[in-house]
Amino acid sequence: MDFATLAGLITGVSIITLAVASGSDFAIFINLPGFLIVIGGTTAAVLIKFPLKTCIESFIEGIKTAFVDRSERPMELVKIATRLADMVRKNGRLSLEDAHIKNQFFQKGTALIADGRGPDFIRKVMTMDMDQSIERHLVGERVFRAIGDSAPAFGMIGTLVGLVQMLANMDDPKSIGMGMAVALLTTLYGSLIANLIALPIAEKLQMRAYGEHTNKALIIESLINIEKGENPRVMEEILLTYLPSRERDAVTNGSAYAATEKHTKPAKTTR
Amino acid sequence: MDFATLAGLITGVSIITLAVASGSDFAIFINLPGFLIVIGGTTAAVLIKFPLKTCIESFIEGIKTAFVDRSERPMELVKIATRLADMVRKNGRLSLEDAHIKNQFFQKGTALIADGRGPDFIRKVMTMDMDQSIERHLVGERVFRAIGDSAPAFGMIGTLVGLVQMLANMDDPKSIGMGMAVALLTTLYGSLIANLIALPIAEKLQMRAYGEHTNKALIIESLINIEKGENPRVMEEILLTYLPSRERDAVTNGSAYAATEKHTKPAKTTR
Amino acid sequence: MDFATLAGLITGVSIITLAVASGSDFAIFINLPGFLIVIGGTTAAVLIKFPLKTCIESFIEGIKTAFVDRSERPMELVKIATRLADMVRKNGRLSLEDAHIKNQFFQKGTALIADGRGPDFIRKVMTMDMDQSIERHLVGERVFRAIGDSAPAFGMIGTLVGLVQMLANMDDPKSIGMGMAVALLTTLYGSLIANLIALPIAEKLQMRAYGEHTNKALIIESLINIEKGENPRVMEEILLTYLPSRERDAVTNGSAYAATEKHTKPAKTTR
Amino acid sequence: MDFATLAGLITGVSIITLAVASGSDFAIFINLPGFLIVIGGTTAAVLIKFPLKTCIESFIEGIKTAFVDRSERPMELVKIATRLADMVRKNGRLSLEDAHIKNQFFQKGTALIADGRGPDFIRKVMTMDMDQSIERHLVGERVFRAIGDSAPAFGMIGTLVGLVQMLANMDDPKSIGMGMAVALLTTLYGSLIANLIALPIAEKLQMRAYGEHTNKALIIESLINIEKGENPRVMEEILLTYLPSRERDAVTNGSAYAATEKHTKPAKTTR
Amino acid sequence: MDFATLAGLITGVSIITLAVASGSDFAIFINLPGFLIVIGGTTAAVLIKFPLKTCIESFIEGIKTAFVDRSERPMELVKIATRLADMVRKNGRLSLEDAHIKNQFFQKGTALIADGRGPDFIRKVMTMDMDQSIERHLVGERVFRAIGDSAPAFGMIGTLVGLVQMLANMDDPKSIGMGMAVALLTTLYGSLIANLIALPIAEKLQMRAYGEHTNKALIIESLINIEKGENPRVMEEILLTYLPSRERDAVTNGSAYAATEKHTKPAKTTR
Repeated sequence: MDFATLAGLITGVSIITLAVASGSDFAIFINLPGFLIVIGGTTAAVLIKFPLKTCIESFIEGIKTAFVDRSERPMELVKIATRLADMVRKNGRLSLEDAHIKNQFFQKGTALIADGRGPDFIRKVMTMDMDQSIERHLVGERVFRAIGDSAPAFGMIGTLVGLVQMLANMDDPKSIGMGMAVALLTTLYGSLIANLIALPIAEKLQMRAYGEHTNKALIIESLINIEKGENPRVMEEILLTYLPSRERDAVTNGSAYAATEKHTKPAKTTR
Repeated sequence: MDFATLAGLITGVSIITLAVASGSDFAIFINLPGFLIVIGGTTAAVLIKFPLKTCIESFIEGIKTAFVDRSERPMELVKIATRLADMVRKNGRLSLEDAHIKNQFFQKGTALIADGRGPDFIRKVMTMDMDQSIERHLVGERVFRAIGDSAPAFGMIGTLVGLVQMLANMDDPKSIGMGMAVALLTTLYGSLIANLIALPIAEKLQMRAYGEHTNKALIIESLINIEKGENPRVMEEILLTYLPSRERDAVTNGSAYAATEKHTKPAKTTR
Repeated sequence: MDFATLAGLITGVSIITLAVASGSDFAIFINLPGFLIVIGGTTAAVLIKFPLKTCIESFIEGIKTAFVDRSERPMELVKIATRLADMVRKNGRLSLEDAHIKNQFFQKGTALIADGRGPDFIRKVMTMDMDQSIERHLVGERVFRAIGDSAPAFGMIGTLVGLVQMLANMDDPKSIGMGMAVALLTTLYGSLIANLIALPIAEKLQMRAYGEHTNKALIIESLINIEKGENPRVMEEILLTYLPSRERDAVTNGSAYAATEKHTKPAKTTR
Repeated sequence: MDFATLAGLITGVSIITLAVASGSDFAIFINLPGFLIVIGGTTAAVLIKFPLKTCIESFIEGIKTAFVDRSERPMELVKIATRLADMVRKNGRLSLEDAHIKNQFFQKGTALIADGRGPDFIRKVMTMDMDQSIERHLVGERVFRAIGDSAPAFGMIGTLVGLVQMLANMDDPKSIGMGMAVALLTTLYGSLIANLIALPIAEKLQMRAYGEHTNKALIIESLINIEKGENPRVMEEILLTYLPSRERDAVTNGSAYAATEKHTKPAKTTR
Repeated sequence: MDFATLAGLITGVSIITLAVASGSDFAIFINLPGFLIVIGGTTAAVLIKFPLKTCIESFIEGIKTAFVDRSERPMELVKIATRLADMVRKNGRLSLEDAHIKNQFFQKGTALIADGRGPDFIRKVMTMDMDQSIERHLVGERVFRAIGDSAPAFGMIGTLVGLVQMLANMDDPKSIGMGMAVALLTTLYGSLIANLIALPIAEKLQMRAYGEHTNKALIIESLINIEKGENPRVMEEILLTYLPSRERDAVTNGSAYAATEKHTKPAKTTR
């Protein structure tokens, strides 16, 4: 779970609700036709902008990605990589066939090494795979950004509709205030949808895509090094530069490779 | 047909219409001079921005592209490519002369292979061809984005004209409301044209251009591999990285190449 | 002549004029001090932004480029290129000295070939020449975009000035409407100058620069091929990829090279 | 300490406070519910946009970086580099093991040289390290820019809430003014948070990231030169181009290298 | 002197002043607290955004660069370059030691040639030097753009402050107009500072940086050619492509090299 997303949403909604309720009856903030204009118009615009399948898939995947943090910590990946490099140096590439890695992308790469594919092929195929999956995240981001662009626009359209109706029927001056209040509600809805939900989620998807890119680049770097039988310690040194310096410091005392060595019980080597 | 575009437009228009009709007489939302200012001004700006021929062609092509989805699924292209690679390995390049491929871009490329053109020439010519066609889509996008930029601007200009007229003749206070309502209509028209029609279509054209780019890049990759007589299974593996992972998974059980083999009945080879 | 620019301007001005005149006396839309603020302020900003010479030259050249379409159709250039390639293959490079080409850029390039300059020198000099001329178009674009940015800003400044004057002298309630109408006029002027004139012309200059770039890239490609005595038919095939596919189809039946052959009456060769 | 940040904040807050207090009772500018909407909404949006840990870390580090200027002056780095280069030329690479450099990044690089790692390895590892640390600064910048984007949006949302409440309860015309004043306060809060605090700090973080990039690029350049035993004077000449010309002029009379020589007391060499 | 900047400023200020004075007493446009909010807030934001030293230096240098045009015409540089190339061909590189060139950047480059530094070293050092000086201009641009961004924001903040004060004290309806007028003044100040002064100067600094880049790129190209003893006429041909075509045409009749020959009285050579 990514508690930040949930915490953010709950914080936002409760604060707005509280502020609204403290000043007046909550009921005056509910206006169904206005809500329909904003939701309907935004849905329409997004449906035109993206292929139907992309709309639905990206929306679901976007929500899922925003609330569930499935990304692995780079440190874990470095540990796996050093373990694998060790296996290759001791038992040869074929030993990788028995390696079971939870990370599908990493698993696929090791399978390619075990199959004896060369480094150029591995880099090419894995890089394209990475680009494609980043791309999918970014389409999700674009869908949410499209929602964030359209909602305020249709909020304003709803307000214009309300204003025109009010202005055209100004017989009763008493109703002016109420009519204008109702008209402004759609702008409020549109702005809330955009600024509290759609745009933040779009931003989170972009951050996730960036994080995934770093992780996958680290994995590809590992694969290339594992494939050519690089010294695990040298490889670790290179991979650690992918980590933010704080985590890296935690590592150098009690190196990931050293920690790994205990698990894989390597024979003594003259490194 | 791309139903999403149509569904989006119908959804949008009906919801706006409903919301408008539920609150007042629909007639008060119709104002011909205001509509003319928005449409006329936008047309004028677009005419100045683009050469006349580009305007008309891009507009028609844009509408067509937005409503009709002619793009092939990448999976189909992978199947064709593996079939062709198989033909070349069994019967040589000349056998490609008899290959009839619906996709014109792919057909042109195979013709070049059959003609014995080298890989460099093929890559160069096909890449330029791809860039040119992407470019054309993007010009279409720019035309619709220009409409989306100009319509709200002329909507505001119309509102300013209406406000000035109203303010200059404020003898009858009763007419103020009506005058202001009419003035606001042009802003409403401009905003609807931009946010419900022009900008979404521009976005869709951009998505289409991107999809076409992926497809054509896949085709060029195929052509290079076919030309050098690459093993169809290896080529398939590379091409599959162009597909989103979900479709790819559907493929690996029951590989496209395997599926293809049944059609082309290849002799047994020691792959 | 580029009729689209003229047609656009006339359409825009007449529609706005009509809409204005249909609703009220045209005179209320004329306000000289307001017009001076917008024009004067915009001129001032543009004068500060660009060197004086650039301002004037770019403005004149921009207007000229927007109204006069001097760009050649790429098809013509392909025809000239195939003719020249043929000349070189039959009579050697020196024969290019007699070639008279209306396009100055092409002429300069052929002169370089006739002078025996190598392909690297030609590519370098011609590419820099191209970049310089594109650059000049883009400076023109920037001048008009600066006008389009400043005009609405000074329109708003004018409105603020008008509002302050009106609000500070609200003795006579009757004059409020008129005062506000006059104040809004500058915003209207600024918005019209930007959206109907300056921004569309800026966009057109950008399109022109793009078109010129395509043409000159095509010419440089031709020159390199002509210089190395490439087979005219092969060169034509490469050059045709610079054309939009529609024009290209028109060519392949009745190839440009074939059409050219009649003019230059080449000896039979075993291509 | 970076006094500019502090001075700026104090200047800004006092001037606004003074201007406010000079015109009216300060109390009318305080509205807790409005303040909560802006702060709460912005916090919510930022929490959704970034992982919780990133939020907190970046916020703290951002504040720290904005107020404390820990970056070294490039001139110092050039001096250290020439001293190290001298050491290497006289006593060999191993002598670097005793070099104690305050700058951690520089220290790490010299350790790599002392370990006998080749220039390619050093450049790769140090460049990735640099990119990662720049990246971290830029994430901080994004957090503050997100605050600067959200605060005005939630300010407007608060104003809309206030306006709706006021318009729905317009029984007492006397309260209208006060209601509207309170409604506008949230827009004021949002705008102040964005323009006086969040956006300027975001900008400063970007400038810092840029400065750090220049420094680290200079260090990497030094390391490569030191590793290959480059003549200190030639290296200094290259490194000085990283400095703004003013500081450089101060150096050429009384060269940094010359100044350094006194400290390290080099043997006479025939440079 | 760059008269355009001065002319622009004078034009702008006088037209605004005239328009203001023609409609009302000039005094109503002066409001010191409002002016302080805009100036103070903007200063505060800029102080936070940039290091104190950068603020002051960039501001002064920006003003200087905007009003004084110290950039040399490219034609002059071409003339100097051909003269130097001639000297090198006749008397060898050492003769450059006596060459006195006003342009410091050019002078530094020729000194490097005279010192016998190779072309790679020269290109590297001079390019870094160029990038650094461009960078400095661009920091100046950023400072003025920051002013142009902040001034309207603090103008709006001042207006909000004024509106809140007015709305909270609406006892005397007569004062409403005056209060609102005063409130709007800060928006007017902010908009004028941004659109008439800060943004145009930022744009001019960017243009200057671009011009300086072209000049320095031309100089570096010259230096490389001079260093390798290139034929002056060939070099001139390359350098002329850096000039806009109009100036170039003026040159080809009466070549710069020819013109130069008279000055340097070269011995007859068989070019």
